[in-house]
Amino acid sequence: MAPSYKLTYFATKGWAEPIRFLFSYGDLDFEDVRIQHDQWLALKDQAPFGVLPMLEHEGRKAGQSVAISRYVAKKVQLAGKDDWEDLEIDAVVDSIKDGCLKISAIRAESDEEKRKAIKNNIVKEVFPNMLKCLERLTQENNGYLVLGRLTWADLYFVSLSDHLDIIAEYKVLKDYPNLEALKRNVLALSGIKKWVEKRPETSF
Amino acid sequence: MAPSYKLTYFATKGWAEPIRFLFSYGDLDFEDVRIQHDQWLALKDQAPFGVLPMLEHEGRKAGQSVAISRYVAKKVQLAGKDDWEDLEIDAVVDSIKDGCLKISAIRAESDEEKRKAIKNNIVKEVFPNMLKCLERLTQENNGYLVLGRLTWADLYFVSLSDHLDIIAEYKVLKDYPNLEALKRNVLALSGIKKWVEKRPETSF
Repeated sequence: MAPSYKLTYFATKGWAEPIRFLFSYGDLDFEDVRIQHDQWLALKDQAPFGVLPMLEHEGRKAGQSVAISRYVAKKVQLAGKDDWEDLEIDAVVDSIKDGCLKISAIRAESDEEKRKAIKNNIVKEVFPNMLKCLERLTQENNGYLVLGRLTWADLYFVSLSDHLDIIAEYKVLKDYPNLEALKRNVLALSGIKKWVEKRPETSF
Repeated sequence: MAPSYKLTYFATKGWAEPIRFLFSYGDLDFEDVRIQHDQWLALKDQAPFGVLPMLEHEGRKAGQSVAISRYVAKKVQLAGKDDWEDLEIDAVVDSIKDGCLKISAIRAESDEEKRKAIKNNIVKEVFPNMLKCLERLTQENNGYLVLGRLTWADLYFVSLSDHLDIIAEYKVLKDYPNLEALKRNVLALSGIKKWVEKRPETSF
């Protein structure tokens, strides 16, 4: 039987990887559809809000990576136990997303010199500010980002962290021992380990 | 008795206004703390993730505007009735937030000519793309953005729409009759009407 979840994204990790991590953690079977940019042009009008990733489930479609991640997190019991816990998780996730979104300014700049300056600012200012804050949280929360236990915020962060390494051109977590340990622990979770071993190799 | 919710932000509408709308809609009393930028420097270390708005409730603190909005939305019965409904609302809200976030690129550019070009692109491309999509949704959803009924996505959008007008220097909704009607309807809700009448006048 085909999986009941179909996730469509480009042939990269990108904003779909947190969702793929969540499905894999919970051992929920999903169809991992990877399209080329020229296929996207034909599909764009069918996607809610014209963005990928897109989730299809029981004949319904939804877009937006964080929204889909939160939905899957509830299915695999990595959400909060009450509304305030959900608020705390959501706040960490949105802070990580805000930091990662700044990366897109690099691509948006066509002037080579300016692009270098933006990238330099992101690597030297944006990343350290974000990581210092996350390192402190992880230290205060029993090795996790929030609530003293594993939540989807941890999977969200670890699934995107390779991308930070690529932008910075070095292992950005090396100065943050608590975040490094968190990454190791998440990657050692049985469902995640299996996923990382079997996922298609892509450079970003 | 002091209100049990304390919301801290700058003396503007900005990212706090959706939260103020939600409290007001549900007639939940909240302390509306507005600080100056020099006060923020002293407060920054106490705020989770070093960002405003910040919500304090029962001795706990949380940051991030969308996360706080979602939390308050649940309290005032403007969230979804199941996980998929929440996903649909979240996706609309994140799309609006992504569009509005692009505005910050205007402030980030110091060169006057380049700033004009960025602003022009936002007004001529980013806003119309976003509003065309939201107009279609509102047409398909019984005059609301999603689920065919009032949700916190509607309050989120309307509370931020003044800001779009300011950036564009004209009433951006005038070409989108369904969105204009949505705005009128939200502003006519009793709690929102009272709030808009009593809120401090600020230019943005």
